[in-house]
Amino acid sequence: MEKYLQVSEAQRVVLESVATMGAEQVKLEQSLGRVLAEEVRANRDQPPFDISAMDGYALRSADLASVPAILEIIEDIKAGDLPSKTLVPGQCARIMTGAPMPQGADAVIRVEDTEAKPDNQVQINQPVKPGNDIRRLGENMRNGEVVLAPGTAITPGVIGVLATVKRAQVQVYRRPRVAILSTGNELEGLDEPVDPNKIPNSNSYALMGQVQALGIEPVLLGIARDDPEELARYLKRGLEYDVLLVSGGTSVGVHDYVRPTIEALGVQMLFWRVSMKPGHPVAFGKIGAKIIFGLPGNPVSSMVCFEQFVAPALRRMMGHARTYRRTVEARMTHNVKHQPGRTEFIRVLLAKEPGGYAATSTGAQGSGMLLSMARADGLAVVPGDSAGLAAGGTVTVQLLDGTFFQDDAGFGE
Amino acid sequence: MEKYLQVSEAQRVVLESVATMGAEQVKLEQSLGRVLAEEVRANRDQPPFDISAMDGYALRSADLASVPAILEIIEDIKAGDLPSKTLVPGQCARIMTGAPMPQGADAVIRVEDTEAKPDNQVQINQPVKPGNDIRRLGENMRNGEVVLAPGTAITPGVIGVLATVKRAQVQVYRRPRVAILSTGNELEGLDEPVDPNKIPNSNSYALMGQVQALGIEPVLLGIARDDPEELARYLKRGLEYDVLLVSGGTSVGVHDYVRPTIEALGVQMLFWRVSMKPGHPVAFGKIGAKIIFGLPGNPVSSMVCFEQFVAPALRRMMGHARTYRRTVEARMTHNVKHQPGRTEFIRVLLAKEPGGYAATSTGAQGSGMLLSMARADGLAVVPGDSAGLAAGGTVTVQLLDGTFFQDDAGFGE
Repeated sequence: MEKYLQVSEAQRVVLESVATMGAEQVKLEQSLGRVLAEEVRANRDQPPFDISAMDGYALRSADLASVPAILEIIEDIKAGDLPSKTLVPGQCARIMTGAPMPQGADAVIRVEDTEAKPDNQVQINQPVKPGNDIRRLGENMRNGEVVLAPGTAITPGVIGVLATVKRAQVQVYRRPRVAILSTGNELEGLDEPVDPNKIPNSNSYALMGQVQALGIEPVLLGIARDDPEELARYLKRGLEYDVLLVSGGTSVGVHDYVRPTIEALGVQMLFWRVSMKPGHPVAFGKIGAKIIFGLPGNPVSSMVCFEQFVAPALRRMMGHARTYRRTVEARMTHNVKHQPGRTEFIRVLLAKEPGGYAATSTGAQGSGMLLSMARADGLAVVPGDSAGLAAGGTVTVQLLDGTFFQDDAGFGE
Repeated sequence: MEKYLQVSEAQRVVLESVATMGAEQVKLEQSLGRVLAEEVRANRDQPPFDISAMDGYALRSADLASVPAILEIIEDIKAGDLPSKTLVPGQCARIMTGAPMPQGADAVIRVEDTEAKPDNQVQINQPVKPGNDIRRLGENMRNGEVVLAPGTAITPGVIGVLATVKRAQVQVYRRPRVAILSTGNELEGLDEPVDPNKIPNSNSYALMGQVQALGIEPVLLGIARDDPEELARYLKRGLEYDVLLVSGGTSVGVHDYVRPTIEALGVQMLFWRVSMKPGHPVAFGKIGAKIIFGLPGNPVSSMVCFEQFVAPALRRMMGHARTYRRTVEARMTHNVKHQPGRTEFIRVLLAKEPGGYAATSTGAQGSGMLLSMARADGLAVVPGDSAGLAAGGTVTVQLLDGTFFQDDAGFGE
């Protein structure tokens, strides 16, 4: 039999085998979820001058030595205006958030702390310190300063920063091109009529969804029958892409002809088995800069292997530093049986409870039970050497797609 | 002054004002992230017959009353084959994962527990119970059974289930059409040359990214100057969409003409102020089934308000039950000052530590500090009535985009 790698060993082998893709230029509007391949610098001071942080009055703080104080309003300054006057003692200017400070002023008081008076006057009810509620020239960024480093994942906030420095186009790492191939005589294509003796091809589509969730549009190559020549033809086509996912073909039986077919194409296989449940017949190889994954034919196994090995590889190729699924600690609500040996991934539902999360198995964990994967919020990880988990014990849970939002706000006021 | 709503009150007002959009049909390939608008039923039994869960031998468990036992191999059954023979005592069939069980067999033993012998014989080294490693007809789903309910968010696992029941097209809730308008004389468009006296329009693009992150492609209407007629023209155009986001125009000063302009268009404004920091000048209104948000001009305030109010509204309109950002509990690594009053959202970095997460402020929390929003992993929520947080205390953190993956696997073996 093949050597069984630990999950962490197999993850290391995969990540050591992939490199970040080359760079390409995209429009800012198409940059979300990509990773910066260039250093981005500020193109001016931000703010470009001292501005007010509040709607209120720009004034001389020394005029408020005793309050209440009555000041004369000599100007109205809106954002986008340039102030035309200089304040002398006893004067102030009405000012809007974001508007430039007038000469002579050294502080802002917000409108809530004032009272309007007749004859262009205002009563100020409390003193302020010099600098109060002023946003200083260059406070956010200095002209020429590096504001974003290569490797920065482009989130909405990063898009805002890129717009601030007027980058309508940015250099990002290219996304790998991904092809998906299913294998097996038993499989029935999505567009084929129902044959009661066949099994619908669900894996290609679940994998498609997993790849799409990473921001990559994969190509579905279809179904290769259990025939070495047909398989070789499909594999050759698949190896035109950066990443090839082959579903099925790694179990002991079909392995006999899949392995020589793959190796005859020049693919260097780095592992065929990982000590995990579900999913142990998972294989990985490379040919030049291209990589190929052999994923189990069982739908749940295939999806679990994707999350542990394929997603980290694709994320790394896209330039992401964060390659692994977000985890949270949770309280297991029931006992979990486990024979020491393989690392086990249990589909769980998560419920919030005081102090954190409670995890409960979705029920039967058979690797054909795709519905339970569809319902799951996460995968609870039972370490290989565990003799089982007791109810109430803490378990690490990988958060799956669909859990980025929750039913309630989750905080009190 | 306007009444200040609590964050939770404002969220309730928003969610009570929106309804789920109508349904539309999309291809399975385009369904990720959408929400099912129909009930989906199984179109056959899955599996369609009893199949083997392992690569091994299908046999009669009674033949293993004493082991080791030698059995005759009468057939090879691969997935996709139909077995042609019936086992009698002393016989077995070699069988692959997913292949149909032959007549006469009542169990499978995996190949690892056997030894090949000459003359088409195999030695079985341990007994098995009837039913061992068989996946039963209909075990995953029964023909006609409801497998997915309306309101199910379409994740990769759900796509797999839809492919299993041969749904190449599905009914999903329509996505709201969203328009984004920025207001202010001080703003400089992304494609305009740099003017040292202006402020670049970053809000439209940060909001664009936030909308895109929810799976919706918004339309950017551009910048309306501080002029009631121009604003009215832009607002009219924006109200052709299901949702209009207006950035700027809610602070006290501009409020004076924005409010009558909006109300003159027939918009019923439901609030103008929320007791939160940053972000209190946030407004919300509706006109028929359309909704309009007035978001603060400060970039961070705008993004924080989007997460609390706009994202839940858009998610609800798309049919999602989960409308609020995922939260985790974290240990605050330092003291946080807070004056009792408004609910405060502090941009934080998260670090994993034994038992959970540690949260640390990104630094200066000025509402113009977009870079700190770009760097943040989450928003720590300081309740309005809090007199401040002590280092080591627990805080609820909303996870922001970019945190669905992490640097390390996060579990041991």
